[in-house]
Amino acid sequence: MTTTAVHPAERLERARQATAAAGLDALLISPGADLRYLTGYDALPLERLTCLVLPAEGEAFLVVPELERPAALASPAGGLGIGITGWTETEDPYALVAARLPARPACVGVDNHMWAEKTMAFRAALPGTRQALAGTVLSALRRRKSAAEVGALRRAGAAIDRVHARMGEWLRPGRTEREAGRDIADAIVAEGHVRTDFVVVGSGPNSASPHHDLSDRVMRPGDTVVVDIGGTTEDGYCSDSTRNYVLGEAPADYLRLHEVLLAAQRRQTDAVRPGITSGELDAIGRDFIDEAGFGPYFIHRTGHGIGVESHEEPYIVTGSELVLEPGMAFSIEPGIYLPGRFGARIEDIVICTEDGGERLNLTPRDLTVLP
Amino acid sequence: MTTTAVHPAERLERARQATAAAGLDALLISPGADLRYLTGYDALPLERLTCLVLPAEGEAFLVVPELERPAALASPAGGLGIGITGWTETEDPYALVAARLPARPACVGVDNHMWAEKTMAFRAALPGTRQALAGTVLSALRRRKSAAEVGALRRAGAAIDRVHARMGEWLRPGRTEREAGRDIADAIVAEGHVRTDFVVVGSGPNSASPHHDLSDRVMRPGDTVVVDIGGTTEDGYCSDSTRNYVLGEAPADYLRLHEVLLAAQRRQTDAVRPGITSGELDAIGRDFIDEAGFGPYFIHRTGHGIGVESHEEPYIVTGSELVLEPGMAFSIEPGIYLPGRFGARIEDIVICTEDGGERLNLTPRDLTVLP
Repeated sequence: MTTTAVHPAERLERARQATAAAGLDALLISPGADLRYLTGYDALPLERLTCLVLPAEGEAFLVVPELERPAALASPAGGLGIGITGWTETEDPYALVAARLPARPACVGVDNHMWAEKTMAFRAALPGTRQALAGTVLSALRRRKSAAEVGALRRAGAAIDRVHARMGEWLRPGRTEREAGRDIADAIVAEGHVRTDFVVVGSGPNSASPHHDLSDRVMRPGDTVVVDIGGTTEDGYCSDSTRNYVLGEAPADYLRLHEVLLAAQRRQTDAVRPGITSGELDAIGRDFIDEAGFGPYFIHRTGHGIGVESHEEPYIVTGSELVLEPGMAFSIEPGIYLPGRFGARIEDIVICTEDGGERLNLTPRDLTVLP
Repeated sequence: MTTTAVHPAERLERARQATAAAGLDALLISPGADLRYLTGYDALPLERLTCLVLPAEGEAFLVVPELERPAALASPAGGLGIGITGWTETEDPYALVAARLPARPACVGVDNHMWAEKTMAFRAALPGTRQALAGTVLSALRRRKSAAEVGALRRAGAAIDRVHARMGEWLRPGRTEREAGRDIADAIVAEGHVRTDFVVVGSGPNSASPHHDLSDRVMRPGDTVVVDIGGTTEDGYCSDSTRNYVLGEAPADYLRLHEVLLAAQRRQTDAVRPGITSGELDAIGRDFIDEAGFGPYFIHRTGHGIGVESHEEPYIVTGSELVLEPGMAFSIEPGIYLPGRFGARIEDIVICTEDGGERLNLTPRDLTVLP
């Protein structure tokens, strides 16, 4: 990942302006999605402090463990023209950051994912400074994607579609979920990601567990299988798509469940447009599923935003008044789960465009019958 | 991973007693190493709250997103006899936890790795309750390994040794670090881990960057290569070992550097015994390297503890007065790095036994010459 149209260098300046506008004195960003978004540096999330400091007034700088300074310099962050300071094992990096901040900041925004041990160390190093969440500033930037970011998400969508298109190679009676899952994880990388983020293979009754962990259950003829997979591409953007498979002949009541789900998911994706709220979009699918009698079995929200992270804003959830805007990218993934029997979920990533929605996942949404 | 000798069910009770002894009213444990250590549940680290609540007085319980309740029940946590409560998308899980805690707790211990957005949500849900770090209670339990845990670490050590023993298959002139790194990552899983945690392949001048990220640099004859690799086994315990390779003939001054390093590392591992402090152990290697003239190029601590996490207490670092005790497991990994030229690091995991130390990594520590 380098500083490109997908990751423009001016993000730092936009974030600085937003920080000032929000009345925060600085952002403190630790390894993870925000750091990748702002600098392109995919730092190790370890116990030693790595922190991008973005003052509302003044120059941004990056504080890194001395032993990781070469890696930081070699990363896209090395090309941003910001200072990169290494700290040695006997130094206190929190004191070092505190000393370089504007005198007595009233409020800093800490990375939403910063570890408690680090926020507390900053609390001790900056007594009297209030901590807010950096996400209050950054999520507004991250949730509206540029054309280049949409392009990156489109490539990620095509990559995960290629994996779903090959599912017949791996789902077969006699194999375990874990065996299939390992092959799928390899294929996610082979088809255009730099890493696999998650693989859900829920077979038979396990298909009723939305976030089922790979198990040693052996797949059998007649099993329904939910496959929910995603990875991160070289651009640093994520994919996420769910499809349903059946090994042979599906139970008749499962077919009806899947039909209802398919119609609900289509209604929701067709309804995407600027101006609709996240809560309204959720209700379109939820009401339809409810009227078909499956209401109690749709036990999660409709979807989540996606970008440099698999789950980010906007969340498509009951009651949310967040208004969709062009450039927002999110999943639409209603599901119906009958405990102990079977379940299904259909998931596409959708972009809110100027006048509607664009689906980024294009493999057939119908139930796929495998031998 | 199940409740076994490696992960005994009584850990929860021991942690509860330690919580009470520390004067904390409860621990709040989010997904990650502490949750795996206490319950065996390898929960997804996502935005929805998953939290083990361990009151000093009373019953432990687990709060999970409703859609992950089946996965939590299917995990070893489902066999612990603790309550597992699902929360739906429109509920406030922080309020739910607060309502079930003893009235107005004075102080709770939050997971050291809990995300800032979650600690802040707990702060809002528990006004007036002070937050401390759960690690103040748990690290004393985690850092002394039981015989069963030592067995698990020994198996992890043997697994990563099998990968180092095959390094000649992957490190060859004409291949990139990234190509070799992918093969090594696959081999880490093939040789007995359930996941690869990290792969450092630093070739030529990149060997002078201790935490070098895999790059597209093509390896060449005469390159020195640092390979630092680790994974997690089915038991949930981690491996970590570093060896140095050379493709053909190494520069003469590199050979001397590696000899000094080898002698320093041997002195340190030979010195492991109960009663020595972490700082003394660090100094044994540092002083030796310093006397050999390489002092300024040993830019990191000697090592870190290891267990259910790759990096945990005890840290073997300059000035530390932590006294080693039987059952402690940690890396000894001095390194010497000449910027722009080359570097080397030799790393073994060592257990402090009743009367000395046991190395868990047994592949040759000499420089390995590959064709």
